[in-house]
Amino acid sequence: MIKNLISKFNNKSAKIGVIGLGYVGLPLALCYSEAGFEVIGFDIDKIKVKKLNHGESYIENISCSRIKRSIKSSFKATNNFSDIKFVDAIIICVPTPLKKNQKPNLNFVIKTTNLIVPHLRKEQIISLESTTYPGTTEEVILPRIESNNLKVGRDIFLVYSPEREDPSNPHFHTVNIPKIIGGHTKNCLLIGKSLYGNVINKIIPVSSTKVAEMTKLLENIHRAVNIGLVNEIKIVADKMGINIYEVIKAASTKPFGFTPYFPGPGLGGHCIPIDPFYLTWKARQYGVDTDFIKLAGKVNSKMPNWVLKKTIKALAKEKKSLKKAKILVLGIAYKRNVDDTRESPGIEIIRLLKKKGSIVHYSDPHVPIFPEKRDYKFNLRSIDLTPKKIRSYDAILLITDHKKFDYKKIKYYGKLIVDTRGIYKKVSDNIVLAWLKINMTFLYHNIVI
Amino acid sequence: MIKNLISKFNNKSAKIGVIGLGYVGLPLALCYSEAGFEVIGFDIDKIKVKKLNHGESYIENISCSRIKRSIKSSFKATNNFSDIKFVDAIIICVPTPLKKNQKPNLNFVIKTTNLIVPHLRKEQIISLESTTYPGTTEEVILPRIESNNLKVGRDIFLVYSPEREDPSNPHFHTVNIPKIIGGHTKNCLLIGKSLYGNVINKIIPVSSTKVAEMTKLLENIHRAVNIGLVNEIKIVADKMGINIYEVIKAASTKPFGFTPYFPGPGLGGHCIPIDPFYLTWKARQYGVDTDFIKLAGKVNSKMPNWVLKKTIKALAKEKKSLKKAKILVLGIAYKRNVDDTRESPGIEIIRLLKKKGSIVHYSDPHVPIFPEKRDYKFNLRSIDLTPKKIRSYDAILLITDHKKFDYKKIKYYGKLIVDTRGIYKKVSDNIVLAWLKINMTFLYHNIVI
Repeated sequence: MIKNLISKFNNKSAKIGVIGLGYVGLPLALCYSEAGFEVIGFDIDKIKVKKLNHGESYIENISCSRIKRSIKSSFKATNNFSDIKFVDAIIICVPTPLKKNQKPNLNFVIKTTNLIVPHLRKEQIISLESTTYPGTTEEVILPRIESNNLKVGRDIFLVYSPEREDPSNPHFHTVNIPKIIGGHTKNCLLIGKSLYGNVINKIIPVSSTKVAEMTKLLENIHRAVNIGLVNEIKIVADKMGINIYEVIKAASTKPFGFTPYFPGPGLGGHCIPIDPFYLTWKARQYGVDTDFIKLAGKVNSKMPNWVLKKTIKALAKEKKSLKKAKILVLGIAYKRNVDDTRESPGIEIIRLLKKKGSIVHYSDPHVPIFPEKRDYKFNLRSIDLTPKKIRSYDAILLITDHKKFDYKKIKYYGKLIVDTRGIYKKVSDNIVLAWLKINMTFLYHNIVI
Repeated sequence: MIKNLISKFNNKSAKIGVIGLGYVGLPLALCYSEAGFEVIGFDIDKIKVKKLNHGESYIENISCSRIKRSIKSSFKATNNFSDIKFVDAIIICVPTPLKKNQKPNLNFVIKTTNLIVPHLRKEQIISLESTTYPGTTEEVILPRIESNNLKVGRDIFLVYSPEREDPSNPHFHTVNIPKIIGGHTKNCLLIGKSLYGNVINKIIPVSSTKVAEMTKLLENIHRAVNIGLVNEIKIVADKMGINIYEVIKAASTKPFGFTPYFPGPGLGGHCIPIDPFYLTWKARQYGVDTDFIKLAGKVNSKMPNWVLKKTIKALAKEKKSLKKAKILVLGIAYKRNVDDTRESPGIEIIRLLKKKGSIVHYSDPHVPIFPEKRDYKFNLRSIDLTPKKIRSYDAILLITDHKKFDYKKIKYYGKLIVDTRGIYKKVSDNIVLAWLKINMTFLYHNIVI
């Protein structure tokens, strides 16, 4: 049976099921389809299913033509989970958000598992890709699967293989990002390797699902902590009149032992602000504290407020206050060159500004209409950056450093720019020389932070 | 005058003075001498001066023959600070330790400055290399120099250029580590560039002495925090039965956004455990807290105690207690392949073990005799690791992962090894496979942590 399943993956006669067709699941489903596998994409969202089957995309960096090609050949989307019985592999790519009390919200994972359990059969492999705490696969997925008279490792197989997607990364995408796999048993791992090894360039087997779960968390904790650290140092440098971007650039010339991270207006996206707390929660069950994670969360989440303080201070110099000030927020996606606004600090900043009574507009070439959010809804559309428009704002808050912004124009016409990404402070060698020539006074009169 | 001084550096007719002939100053002095400059090395330690002039070395990775060569050609050491008047450049490489209350101890910097001030003259450049808080050069050095009727930037020149030595690094040493320089004025920087640019491959000019001071601190803070983070995660992983080294290795396969740092028995050396607190102290003057630094300090400094706890637990399984147990500490240098024991966690662990009533020996091929310390003195010599000796200890604490240790032999004969460096847990791909074959039980029966 094991050999049979492996040979199905090797000769691409296996059918692949991908559950959750978002930023992770959709590109993965397309990869399998493009590699010659028949793929069924599952999602409870009927609109997504309909769009995909009509060859439409709802993610900016996945083109309609790419979807159309796959739909024509070997990909279909459905919300009918009884089709699970037709697939040989079930790859779960659903969100793992946090509850309001910072505890893991595994609802999507649990609901998905419950939806598939009645349709599971022998000779299938299940892979969980959602980021989660060590133990999830064995504590949450495994008992549900085995409740259906299937023994994992004998009848059906189970692996954890964390997604490592980095949307808009020009160099790395699904196929060339090495894939970690931990199996519940040796045979689970063997089959998992053939499931992924036939579409992804490099497979990294590890000794358990727990190790694979911890690996993904360590990656994101490392990032959250390093961004938190540089955000803290930024505040210190700011008080001392030191340009943090010049310091980071100089430190980066050390050929060992230093990796640059950059400060910003706060963490965004579906991973870095959220995942670390999955470990915090689980560690507490073992009686251990994760103080670095908590501190990173604290420092990073106070950044939007810090940006506001800097804005208030800069406006005060011109005898203006936030109340009734006209403010433009540049960028509401959580990072450069994407259309994803989940957990975006830009949105948090808009919320804070509105509370203070400012008149807030935004401009984001990737997000033409302000998306509906669970907690609040703003009736806004992205502003066209004409010189007259740019000139009309009391302050412009540069939150997301999209490539598509015309930074020269913004600087030229902007009255006051709060630059949270260091666009105007990242120093080229020429600027260092220019600085020295003009006796170290700063080049731009209208930039703060 | 400026041109004159620069041309002296360019044609190597300038005399170089280096103050403080330790791990930083001595290799730098030798570099200048080897590049063809005449060099006077200054140190208040008469023994060091005598040794150098006799062609002897007191640093393991600097050979006597190298010193002899320089002494014969163009290098002499002295403790006569009036010779300062003969040199064109004064490079200060003295220690910047902490006081007991974690505040900066600038005594060496201040004493050195006071010693040189009476002998300063026009057309000299002074460079501070000691790691310190932003503002030191301008607040501590500058006023003292100018007290002697010399105007910095006109008569005499001042730069800050942090040392970045990494003793025993096989790839990077003084000459090929890029050199950050910040000048007090534009001309200070110009002259500083020619002082260093004629012996060091790459010069990185920055816009002020403050930026240069902050750069060095950021480098070391980054390291202290990342080591602190992984030490914290190690404790969590340990509780969960996860091999942290396997996790770090797997995470390192991510081709972006992750840099591996490794856990250990605590921070050591003259930089990483100390320097970050220089920023903490200075930041407080600006009313800002540096919580990441404090947390890293807290986590890292509790590591020796954690190692003890693991030892107690492992001994308890064999019905032994620390009291009267025979313990061997492997490695008392603060890092691999060096003879430097400053702030070494191995020494702290010996102190803690002695307090608990253990019989403690150590073995360190780089430190044959236990060095005298300010706070405590142990009459110990490095033990030869014969099979019989290795077998005679109740526990062996692997603290420093020197290349010279025979790890196979230690594992073979050791009754119990507490492996704080992951020597036996760093997994090669073969070990992962072996693990899977033996059903994921651990290969070594006598290893803990």
